[in-house]
Amino acid sequence: MPQLSDRITTLNKGGSDGWEVFYRARQMVAEGKDVIELTIGEHDIGTDAAILVAMHTAALNGATGYAMVPGIAPLREALAERVAARTGVPTTADNIIVTAGGQPGLLATHLATGDPGDAALYVDPYYATYPGTMRAASRPPVAVETSAEAAFLPDAAKIDRLAVESGAKSVLINTPNNPTGTVYPGDTLDAIARVTQDRDLWLISDEVYDTQIWEGDHRSPRALPGMADRTMVIGSMSKSHAMTGSRVGWICAPEAAVDALIDLATVTTYGVPGYIQQAALFALQEGDLLETGIATPFRRRRDLALAALKGQTAVGVIPSQGAMYLMLDVRSTGLSGRDFAEALLDAHHIAVMPGESFGTSAAGHIRIALTTEDDRLVSAIETLVAFAGTFAHAA
Amino acid sequence: MPQLSDRITTLNKGGSDGWEVFYRARQMVAEGKDVIELTIGEHDIGTDAAILVAMHTAALNGATGYAMVPGIAPLREALAERVAARTGVPTTADNIIVTAGGQPGLLATHLATGDPGDAALYVDPYYATYPGTMRAASRPPVAVETSAEAAFLPDAAKIDRLAVESGAKSVLINTPNNPTGTVYPGDTLDAIARVTQDRDLWLISDEVYDTQIWEGDHRSPRALPGMADRTMVIGSMSKSHAMTGSRVGWICAPEAAVDALIDLATVTTYGVPGYIQQAALFALQEGDLLETGIATPFRRRRDLALAALKGQTAVGVIPSQGAMYLMLDVRSTGLSGRDFAEALLDAHHIAVMPGESFGTSAAGHIRIALTTEDDRLVSAIETLVAFAGTFAHAA
Repeated sequence: MPQLSDRITTLNKGGSDGWEVFYRARQMVAEGKDVIELTIGEHDIGTDAAILVAMHTAALNGATGYAMVPGIAPLREALAERVAARTGVPTTADNIIVTAGGQPGLLATHLATGDPGDAALYVDPYYATYPGTMRAASRPPVAVETSAEAAFLPDAAKIDRLAVESGAKSVLINTPNNPTGTVYPGDTLDAIARVTQDRDLWLISDEVYDTQIWEGDHRSPRALPGMADRTMVIGSMSKSHAMTGSRVGWICAPEAAVDALIDLATVTTYGVPGYIQQAALFALQEGDLLETGIATPFRRRRDLALAALKGQTAVGVIPSQGAMYLMLDVRSTGLSGRDFAEALLDAHHIAVMPGESFGTSAAGHIRIALTTEDDRLVSAIETLVAFAGTFAHAA
Repeated sequence: MPQLSDRITTLNKGGSDGWEVFYRARQMVAEGKDVIELTIGEHDIGTDAAILVAMHTAALNGATGYAMVPGIAPLREALAERVAARTGVPTTADNIIVTAGGQPGLLATHLATGDPGDAALYVDPYYATYPGTMRAASRPPVAVETSAEAAFLPDAAKIDRLAVESGAKSVLINTPNNPTGTVYPGDTLDAIARVTQDRDLWLISDEVYDTQIWEGDHRSPRALPGMADRTMVIGSMSKSHAMTGSRVGWICAPEAAVDALIDLATVTTYGVPGYIQQAALFALQEGDLLETGIATPFRRRRDLALAALKGQTAVGVIPSQGAMYLMLDVRSTGLSGRDFAEALLDAHHIAVMPGESFGTSAAGHIRIALTTEDDRLVSAIETLVAFAGTFAHAA
């Protein structure tokens, strides 16, 4: 076999680990064991049947040929209207390209905002694919580390310093944040915006959890003064409409950038199935009720989880203001997040993600996905807390 | 706005043009004009309703969450069995990754077989996205030109020379060929295989038209001695099963390469919708009858077209042995393929693709897609021949 490229063989270099817990839990389930899975960010419901019927109808009506590469016009228009309504920023269909989910949006924006060798900044802890995506685009990933003590919010001065040192062309942020549940406050966003302007960086803003806000407000940085022209927003129907498997999302960006992204899509994806786009359009037209219904269980479970965690001292609780996750600090046990997660799975068949899976900043933490029915979730958290308490001597 | 990357702004640099005819024809149709469109390779039928019902059933049954990134196991197994049965090469699910159509397969294989700056060879005339795909992967595209006089078959000695000169890491071939309809004979494939072994190149083999063979046999170069270990085959359900819009295909490659391609897919696409994979599985299980039914109209129309072209001398006919296209030599008119196509559209509302859209080797030619009902196709060809005849004085 000839050599594979360096880029494809080093995608995971120095990256996160700890996914063994996830795979081991899946294996235990396959063996018939009763495992409470609180690992990945996938709804415990499927896509709404009405959306599926709309998709099937569109397919039967002929939407099975090549769809327009930028996305079908009515979906681009509906997405532009949605963005404008939610952010107040004038937005047209020319600012939108439909993508096959958030991940291809992450890749496309990193291909668009820098050439091979141009560094790309991202905030640690991070969604697991970020550095690998940058490596796939031959862009050296540079982590902006944060700390539990600072609520995992990035320090703009650090972004500035790292941007200058690395010659970065872009910075990727994610609010509401996976894995921490943090929602960036206005002053954090303002400070990041200033750095991108001072250093002429692109801001890539992953806002796929923007319908899951439990406290405060989500503000899209594209709405800040002067930012619409240097921000590429990544959106997705996955989390907001429980359409994870349908792989449909969008990028909202300056028109000239969208023109270039359309050229890129022509030679990388060649578009998104027309019937899926019709289903997405139908889902958007269903309005707030559908979205609220999908978000509500996570809000309720987050409240239940916080209540179950109240008054105990075995684990620390990172304030979760959004997204479908809750991060716990298990450093008082003396264990790493990974060792704690492995031990918890062994002892109680409860699967959580080690913080180390999401970068160095979240070491000594675990992430709980609020994707299991209420009683089971609360019971798992109670068990987890008691389990952590058995290590209290190590604190 | 910050600068966009060089790579995204130069995707079409020095590339093919002539798509104006296609877009102008679409515009004329939108204005209500009766245009005979013989431009792009899209079936004049939709996806079979039984396939769509299988998809809907799978979705209603819950296949709406994240699917496994490599593809669902039964589809990978079915594709491996298909490849093994058609080529005689032992193939397992570990040799297969499911992709969102042929285009993402082209991108992934070029990301996998070379790093930025590593040249990539392709045969001219070519499917329109080839050089742009290579540029998206930061791989300098190097054309291997051919000629109508040599039936548009690539000369292995030229591939060898260009590979050495450019330091290429891969060569991309496409048989049955779009746009020419050529099916590479055994000695051409043998000679190309030898060059890839002599120069340690990857062979990327685009075989998406492998069910559309009108004369001779399609041989997958992966089946040649020593080639399974250096060949990545790109397959697709688009042409064989009239599923163009569903964006589902595969790459068949050595196991170690597939492992790396799975890592790449995790950070570039994050998989293909599960219900589409189930639909593809259903379509494969329908067997030969479905595939033959889809291919048959193109065979019939190719025969009708050749009959309509017999005995005339206004245009030359490139022997079409496969795929859904027929290429005509219009050099005797004294016009470029592009000027001929523009003039034909103006005079007779018949839209064909200029050969120049597919590279320099096909200049002075036009490509006819056999994607229109028989009578209309024959009538269009008769009109085209008569129209070409009016330029006969220029010969």
